[in-house]
Amino acid sequence: MPALDLTVSSIDLTRQLCDIPSVSADEKRIADDIWATLEGCDHLELFQDGDAIVAKTNLGRAKRVVIAGHIDTVPINDNVPTRYETIDGVDYLWGRGTVDMKAGCAVALKLAVELTEPNVDITWVWYDHEEVSDALNGLGRLTREYPEMLASDFAILMEPSNSSVEGGCNGNLRAEIRTYGLRSHSARSWIGDNAIHKAAPILAKLAAYEARQVEVDGLVYREGLNAVGISGGVAGNVIPDECMVHINYRFAPSRSADEAVAHIHELFGEYDVTIVDLAQGARPGLDAPLAQEFLKAVGGEAKPKYGWTDVARFSGLGIPAVNYGPGDPMKAHADDERVALEQITECERGLRAWLTA
Amino acid sequence: MPALDLTVSSIDLTRQLCDIPSVSADEKRIADDIWATLEGCDHLELFQDGDAIVAKTNLGRAKRVVIAGHIDTVPINDNVPTRYETIDGVDYLWGRGTVDMKAGCAVALKLAVELTEPNVDITWVWYDHEEVSDALNGLGRLTREYPEMLASDFAILMEPSNSSVEGGCNGNLRAEIRTYGLRSHSARSWIGDNAIHKAAPILAKLAAYEARQVEVDGLVYREGLNAVGISGGVAGNVIPDECMVHINYRFAPSRSADEAVAHIHELFGEYDVTIVDLAQGARPGLDAPLAQEFLKAVGGEAKPKYGWTDVARFSGLGIPAVNYGPGDPMKAHADDERVALEQITECERGLRAWLTA
Repeated sequence: MPALDLTVSSIDLTRQLCDIPSVSADEKRIADDIWATLEGCDHLELFQDGDAIVAKTNLGRAKRVVIAGHIDTVPINDNVPTRYETIDGVDYLWGRGTVDMKAGCAVALKLAVELTEPNVDITWVWYDHEEVSDALNGLGRLTREYPEMLASDFAILMEPSNSSVEGGCNGNLRAEIRTYGLRSHSARSWIGDNAIHKAAPILAKLAAYEARQVEVDGLVYREGLNAVGISGGVAGNVIPDECMVHINYRFAPSRSADEAVAHIHELFGEYDVTIVDLAQGARPGLDAPLAQEFLKAVGGEAKPKYGWTDVARFSGLGIPAVNYGPGDPMKAHADDERVALEQITECERGLRAWLTA
Repeated sequence: MPALDLTVSSIDLTRQLCDIPSVSADEKRIADDIWATLEGCDHLELFQDGDAIVAKTNLGRAKRVVIAGHIDTVPINDNVPTRYETIDGVDYLWGRGTVDMKAGCAVALKLAVELTEPNVDITWVWYDHEEVSDALNGLGRLTREYPEMLASDFAILMEPSNSSVEGGCNGNLRAEIRTYGLRSHSARSWIGDNAIHKAAPILAKLAAYEARQVEVDGLVYREGLNAVGISGGVAGNVIPDECMVHINYRFAPSRSADEAVAHIHELFGEYDVTIVDLAQGARPGLDAPLAQEFLKAVGGEAKPKYGWTDVARFSGLGIPAVNYGPGDPMKAHADDERVALEQITECERGLRAWLTA
């Protein structure tokens, strides 16, 4: 008997999924439950790799679509089990994972089971380790090891986007910029050379930086360049010999990762710059015919996705991909994470309409 | 039987003292050994408070001098027991405490025992907890609780000064300067307000600051204003809402502590400034007749002391005080801490000459 009850609404199914704790690296139970639920579906071909599950229809349709969501969450902070609550007349499901992104996973799971004859072939994916390092990411693992399994004409990633379509994503670069000096006792500071003082022009440049707004395939992406950390100092009586400014550059998907690196070196070339994280963005891909049809079916206006998401992995495989899922991304990872119930229903309705039109 | 052998030279006695570990808060053994050594001296009146020991002559001399040294060290880093070594033809005693400041303590201990009839009355002080917080400082405790015990016309603090006289000391102020902003996800940085960027003008001001050189009682004190630490940042994807610059201001002894605070507020008045440490400097006091005689007896030219030392505590009691002790202060706290043997002998000779002239 399946551990999950699929006869209920996608709202109640979201709650069932959220009440199975699945912080990154602890996804086995929820993956097993999803597997058990899908096992009885004759219309699906199942595959499992680690705690990632792939379920494919093989109906010989002209087009194939990937619909994917991650099953892990950031750490629980006293916000599981979930509860229903109403705030200012809006009904919510409150708790860890409700937004990021078990509501999306529930909608996908319900549709995977119910849509035995969709009008496109579908490759459903539920994957692990999205909330941790790139090296562990389950979708990354599948794209590296089984790229043919993800072959498709279009992909939908069920990242929270208020159940509207958010195309592509900005690229993401982090770098450490270091200044150096010479230690001395601060009572004789003229013997030393203060590395923290040397960071002044770096901060001034960041403060004065005017971030671009770049139109890509009809969507306007807003960039950002910021210090996200700074550290330096040895002791209260020592002139510091090193200072590190940790910067984060979010760049439009029309700029390649290499171009982003070059831009940072152009700005801070006189310093010691170490790139510590680099992920290319993803163009929105809304010019693809399937994307246009999808957009029309679910309604509303497409917006750019500012944050980096796994859509870039599909983009890297040459597959146009968009974000589309229930929940306000501003509530992702928040201690008061909560999803408006109406968004879950709306997302299910949108997907169902498109897949059965 | 005394634990220390006082029949040897002040050099060998330094070694004995250094080989008794006495990192701050662990001074009991060395204090007990010093007490046991002094207990048999009929010419000394002894007093103990915690691990501070006071030994006074009461010869009815016209003048009284305090000669003080601290018996604690900074943590040992594989540099005890000590060893003798010769570098470039100079003989050294190597190891923790050799400079800061057991060579000075040894000279004082040897003279305390041997000089039964000095030409001034002497109050010898060996004290604890100099290397840690002001609140624990043994000399600070004595000045607060037994100020009459330290009453005198002149004080010599055996801080390492290459066995030359260093007058007074600069004042010392540390402050935390904070900037504030608003957190947001760094993918939507325009929603936030970057506190680290706001620190740019603070660092620029510090970098451009021209420190004064101020003549006080004939000695030129060099000031310094420096960042000694900086911190800020929440995570690699969060716009930081706070940044803290930790500054250290070393100010000439002609400037009062209140004036130093006012100067910092004048410079950084627009920011949130918290004074976290404040110690007034000490004027060199070399115009005092006893100081002049002392200077003449030990020879050489007096220099200003840049670092803050406990001479300021005597200064606070209205007692002129100088630093005079063996060892290069640049080697204090260093892992290769070492004292030139010749400086120990020179210091002993200088003090002995003055006290018996």
